[in-house]
Amino acid sequence: MTDPFSRRHFLHAAGAGAASVWIPRTVHGYTEAEVRKMAFNERVEEGISKWDLDTPCLIVDLDRLEGNLDRMQTTLARNGIASRPHAKTHKCPAIARLQVATGSVGICVAKISEAEVMFEHGIEQILMTTVNVTPRKIRRAMHLKKWCTGFIQAVDNPANARDLSAAAAEAGVVADIVVDVDPGGHRSGITAGAPALELAQLVDTLPALRLRGLLCYDGGAQHVQAFADRRTRALSSLEGAAETLVQMNRSGLDTRVFSGGGTGTYNIDHETPGLTDVQVGSYVFMDAQYLALGGAHNPDKYDDFAPALTVMTTVVNAQYEGLATTDAGAKANTINQPWPIIAGETGMSYTAGSDEYGSIRYGDDASRIYAVGDKLELIVSHCDPVVNLYDQMYGVRGDTVEVIWPVSARGKSV
Amino acid sequence: MTDPFSRRHFLHAAGAGAASVWIPRTVHGYTEAEVRKMAFNERVEEGISKWDLDTPCLIVDLDRLEGNLDRMQTTLARNGIASRPHAKTHKCPAIARLQVATGSVGICVAKISEAEVMFEHGIEQILMTTVNVTPRKIRRAMHLKKWCTGFIQAVDNPANARDLSAAAAEAGVVADIVVDVDPGGHRSGITAGAPALELAQLVDTLPALRLRGLLCYDGGAQHVQAFADRRTRALSSLEGAAETLVQMNRSGLDTRVFSGGGTGTYNIDHETPGLTDVQVGSYVFMDAQYLALGGAHNPDKYDDFAPALTVMTTVVNAQYEGLATTDAGAKANTINQPWPIIAGETGMSYTAGSDEYGSIRYGDDASRIYAVGDKLELIVSHCDPVVNLYDQMYGVRGDTVEVIWPVSARGKSV
Repeated sequence: MTDPFSRRHFLHAAGAGAASVWIPRTVHGYTEAEVRKMAFNERVEEGISKWDLDTPCLIVDLDRLEGNLDRMQTTLARNGIASRPHAKTHKCPAIARLQVATGSVGICVAKISEAEVMFEHGIEQILMTTVNVTPRKIRRAMHLKKWCTGFIQAVDNPANARDLSAAAAEAGVVADIVVDVDPGGHRSGITAGAPALELAQLVDTLPALRLRGLLCYDGGAQHVQAFADRRTRALSSLEGAAETLVQMNRSGLDTRVFSGGGTGTYNIDHETPGLTDVQVGSYVFMDAQYLALGGAHNPDKYDDFAPALTVMTTVVNAQYEGLATTDAGAKANTINQPWPIIAGETGMSYTAGSDEYGSIRYGDDASRIYAVGDKLELIVSHCDPVVNLYDQMYGVRGDTVEVIWPVSARGKSV
Repeated sequence: MTDPFSRRHFLHAAGAGAASVWIPRTVHGYTEAEVRKMAFNERVEEGISKWDLDTPCLIVDLDRLEGNLDRMQTTLARNGIASRPHAKTHKCPAIARLQVATGSVGICVAKISEAEVMFEHGIEQILMTTVNVTPRKIRRAMHLKKWCTGFIQAVDNPANARDLSAAAAEAGVVADIVVDVDPGGHRSGITAGAPALELAQLVDTLPALRLRGLLCYDGGAQHVQAFADRRTRALSSLEGAAETLVQMNRSGLDTRVFSGGGTGTYNIDHETPGLTDVQVGSYVFMDAQYLALGGAHNPDKYDDFAPALTVMTTVVNAQYEGLATTDAGAKANTINQPWPIIAGETGMSYTAGSDEYGSIRYGDDASRIYAVGDKLELIVSHCDPVVNLYDQMYGVRGDTVEVIWPVSARGKSV
């Protein structure tokens, strides 16, 4: 572990440590962030043990992450479809680059601001799965398209298609478009069949748009408990889009993209005729919500992928019988259900219901009792919103911090 | 509204817009952030209408915020106690400065990283209401204390007091300490009476610590539905601390601080003998959780303070009967209950259960029906964790953006 005091001495030697004044915003050419880093040692060095990290912090086990990437690619290759992983899960360009480097055809994003960040960090093939409907966001999308030729965006209503074409023409670009088809949940997308086909035809005729196919995502299907039920629901909810695809092909439209599915249905979605790729997200990290499902091979646990993401926390109070309090509450975990799982322990439960504190309750069969200062790791409840709370994640190999990855698209909800 | 294209032209004129390359990290002395701002126009200018902001975004009504500050100070002054507002709610140095400027004796923080950010932005009187128990965090606290003479921290167990004293001595500082007394929830704090008194005496004798009093916070008391029940619970949960205070005074210990209470009990806490200040947080913003309570004067609604904080969102799908979908889901709102309230409308409900999308359901008596592109404002469910999702908040006067405040301590959960 790096001694923070040596950094502090360096700072003082640089002239920032005058006795009566606070460290100024910029010191001898250092940025505010660099000064703060030196002053407070907020960023630690790669190479230290994860057990020396200040908590709460987000940890990703690199062996497990790599195993999950490999497992996904192997299965999809066998089934003849591609992965187009959703970056809304990790918000992390480094992981997006790993996905592309290991065979994904590109990434998905949910927001235009995520697309901007991912492109800025070197990702070229980006499918935005939601619509841009305001003039400002449409202009942002067209400006991005100017630079990011691999940017494709969704459309789900005719008026929006016309707005996009007008903005694309104004920006001097041709915008690549997929039609978002409603799987039946009426959350996003246009109705499968005639309405979707007509929208596709409209996109095809509009001067500054270029039709690239369709997408259909049923979020609810991903978390159906039993694998057989999940399969039935997933295939059923994609049926309308598959029929629309046939109609689009008959009409001579471009359907090179038919994207859908996710981590819960990655080994089901290829059964839908014509589907080209799955928008898998959570498989890189896994979480308690997915682990609670049944898998194709294990009805009691969805263990196709290994839990790679944890929140590390420290016990701050252990003086009351049957209880311990940690420093990781709702602001470090979200309040999604089920509650986080304490990694490697049995006979205890974790609650993250209060903003700043987590609570451990011990059963009679608790595998250990914590003391103040002890650290533990939590398998998070729902990975996407938890990652969105952290500015960085610590990539560890065993116990050693190998890399610190900025969560560059954190908070990019616009 | 500023035309983003003019900024873009400026950028191009500056030489960054060569046709075949992406905008580099630094351009002619501009930082990456500045370049991105110019390229994507992510930050808007003060002076535009709030209705032109990209969504989802966080909006604070400045008239209401100022009214809430005034209402709190007036009431507390009448009751003879002070406010020491909790910055964990707003995470925003600008609001902390407003609070101090309008009479607060200082601020509270929940984490050492929040204390560092607040001090860095000019706040001098900071009470950290939780404990630092690891060697790294204790060193950070002592380093902060070196510069921030008004920093006070909590302790709730004897071993930690000894650790703090050793670290303070090593750092060449005397650390100011309050004893955290458990109100009965066993979440944090030491048991009132003899254990707390003995800890206070220990702190008083340790060479590098200086006792400053005690704190006692009952989070659960804040949200008791009926005012009379809330009063009973709040006064009861502070009784042990009040008795401890008497014992500390009898022992000749320093008790200049006796801090407790919050927004739900701000007009109750002064009845506890010896209490010096309340750690009010949510009053600046209010939220749906507080509005659902009863107040001292209105049993049906806690309307002592005006809802000043909203999330603005845009309708992205309106093609299905009885429904509309927005761009503000769980990542923009959290999933706290009750769900957000649609400001100014009746006969409709909002759900933020999915990560990226919000859902509006219309009743038969809905006050309006939204079209795609329409914007609306949500009174958030629970203000603290929602603010923690955003990098900035837009301060508006009427409909006009008057100021953009960085949420500088966002994500500072360490």
